[in-house]
Amino acid sequence: MDSRFANGSSVGTVVPQRWKFAAPFKLQSGDILPSFELVYETYGELHSGRDNAVLVCHALSGSHHAAGLHADDESPGWWDSCIGPGKPIDTDKFFVVCVNNIGGCHGSTGPASTNPRTGEPYGPEFPSVTVKDWVHTQAMLAHGIGIRRFAAVVGGSLGGMQAMQWAIDFPDRVEHAILVACAAKLSAQNIAFNKIARSAIHADPCFEQGQYKARGRFPSVGLRLARMLGHVTYLSDGAMGSKFGREIKQGDPEQGADVEFQVESYLHYQGERFSKRFDANSYLLITRLLDCFDPAREFGDDLVVTLSETLCRFLVISFTSDWRFAPERSDEIVDALVRAGRPVTSAVIDSPHGHDSFLLYSPRYFEVLGEYFQRMARDCSS
Amino acid sequence: MDSRFANGSSVGTVVPQRWKFAAPFKLQSGDILPSFELVYETYGELHSGRDNAVLVCHALSGSHHAAGLHADDESPGWWDSCIGPGKPIDTDKFFVVCVNNIGGCHGSTGPASTNPRTGEPYGPEFPSVTVKDWVHTQAMLAHGIGIRRFAAVVGGSLGGMQAMQWAIDFPDRVEHAILVACAAKLSAQNIAFNKIARSAIHADPCFEQGQYKARGRFPSVGLRLARMLGHVTYLSDGAMGSKFGREIKQGDPEQGADVEFQVESYLHYQGERFSKRFDANSYLLITRLLDCFDPAREFGDDLVVTLSETLCRFLVISFTSDWRFAPERSDEIVDALVRAGRPVTSAVIDSPHGHDSFLLYSPRYFEVLGEYFQRMARDCSS
Repeated sequence: MDSRFANGSSVGTVVPQRWKFAAPFKLQSGDILPSFELVYETYGELHSGRDNAVLVCHALSGSHHAAGLHADDESPGWWDSCIGPGKPIDTDKFFVVCVNNIGGCHGSTGPASTNPRTGEPYGPEFPSVTVKDWVHTQAMLAHGIGIRRFAAVVGGSLGGMQAMQWAIDFPDRVEHAILVACAAKLSAQNIAFNKIARSAIHADPCFEQGQYKARGRFPSVGLRLARMLGHVTYLSDGAMGSKFGREIKQGDPEQGADVEFQVESYLHYQGERFSKRFDANSYLLITRLLDCFDPAREFGDDLVVTLSETLCRFLVISFTSDWRFAPERSDEIVDALVRAGRPVTSAVIDSPHGHDSFLLYSPRYFEVLGEYFQRMARDCSS
Repeated sequence: MDSRFANGSSVGTVVPQRWKFAAPFKLQSGDILPSFELVYETYGELHSGRDNAVLVCHALSGSHHAAGLHADDESPGWWDSCIGPGKPIDTDKFFVVCVNNIGGCHGSTGPASTNPRTGEPYGPEFPSVTVKDWVHTQAMLAHGIGIRRFAAVVGGSLGGMQAMQWAIDFPDRVEHAILVACAAKLSAQNIAFNKIARSAIHADPCFEQGQYKARGRFPSVGLRLARMLGHVTYLSDGAMGSKFGREIKQGDPEQGADVEFQVESYLHYQGERFSKRFDANSYLLITRLLDCFDPAREFGDDLVVTLSETLCRFLVISFTSDWRFAPERSDEIVDALVRAGRPVTSAVIDSPHGHDSFLLYSPRYFEVLGEYFQRMARDCSS
């Protein structure tokens, strides 16, 4: 049976907003960003009590454009399935904020931006950024737009990592942290896949050691390969089997060399599309940031200690067929929260769609997420 | 407790042999190889009754050098763990043959060989080859060296596919087919990984559309990437976690860009090493051959029908942590054999080493394989 959150409507046309921080910002690395801008979107209305704000954090390939349509959009924002009137993150009840993170390539300050010190694009000189830096810049924006405390910080994958970091770094500014298809840190296998993706970009002769923009080139082949690899790891073997199987697009398998399977053509298309909308230096920066995320490092590598000073409630959701951030990785978080004596609700959702499940409708997923937000809504003033 | 097959000895120094087939050979594609050579090794003694011959089939990166040492070897052949006096494939009892397949790059005719029609290396002009072609050329060699019937044809991964094809194409020339970490065909996910590996080779500017040898170049970066990706899929998440975890080789994770995890360095090293010993055109050819392997295609896509005319006994072994050729893929073969009324023994071995498990010692694996061969030995004359 469908979830009652299956048939929400769209937030409609949205217009990104922009916030400029003119003061220098010290990153976790010690490097200084002389100034920076954040692009963000909001959906819904902030209550006068300012207690219904929800921060949605994006993952590797996402942006501030989580829901609704821009004037020139062919398809809606990346989490439009979940955000809107009557949807799990119900914009009739919540004021939703989604921020493009620094280091990215969708409008906030990143490697493709102009370095005010040189007048040239930062390119590979853009400093290293961490999840902590993202969370701290998001907190600065929240302060700027008058949100002292979020009813919830929510995200899938790398977005969930930001929600976790919020709970750790700003315990009194988050009421609920919602971690979907997340992990407390990447595994060696995760790092290995990221390494190969980065190596493919580095190997592209158009990469020019990151100076491609200044030289009028772009490592689209390397970025395409990186995305193809990422894409395979976001899907499950089963989902790829159902969608493509061994269907042949062209050629004869007895003639080997000229055959092309549907799955190959699909992957190539996905990689190609991605390479046209993403920046290679951002891809390098963000996969590295993913590798390095490990909040327990500051706490003697003890996740229980790490989470014991948090004050929010947690919702942790994972998906059976997700082998990139498997349910066991969510279990580690849940177990640590339980041992830390922190309140946590968790659900493992039966879904065939691999890591991508967190973006897609499935009845129990939407029911769990939607009901959780409904309960939160009842706690908010109106 | 260790298997009694754990402590066998080495076959010692071995010398490859070579067999030349001067007559044109028609491949499954219809293309003609004007002539070809096969390099092979043998271990143990052929009984006068010629009933103790075992054919070992190699996988993607293997060769004819399965056991023992060449004069200049630093490490022994690729399946030295399993082949030798007192080992599971006991060379005191069996006469073992291992053939480098055509299209490869270890001495048998392949893309790097000279095309007798042009006097130049075949390069990308080398015709497409199938598992069927491999098996038929192996059968020609067997005939040449006086083996009418193999006591067993055995292989892991792509080697197991050859054993399966033997059982189908030469039912009266195989007594036992032993399929280890095998599948009846690749899944969409498997094909996707191969596609990315091939794309990495194609993207290397030194690839020169396969004509690199003639132009004095070599796409080592592309081949390195391809191997790095393959390598990750041969290991399990757990095994990589135990071996490397998040151990850092150099740099500070708070300084992102300069950090290098041990697993990255290891993968780079493995890729580099492989790119020095393998030919890129062979890699393309063999991954394509893997994609196209699907013996049921000839039999209306019905694996039960495909296997129902086989006459041998089957042993099918898989490994719990192998996600490239998961136990479920072996189950498909076992189930089809059962439904076809063919005799099959099967074992799923608990091993943390992923697809690579088939190359490594583990007590139950060696016990199952060793005991199976011992029973076979009792059936052979002496």
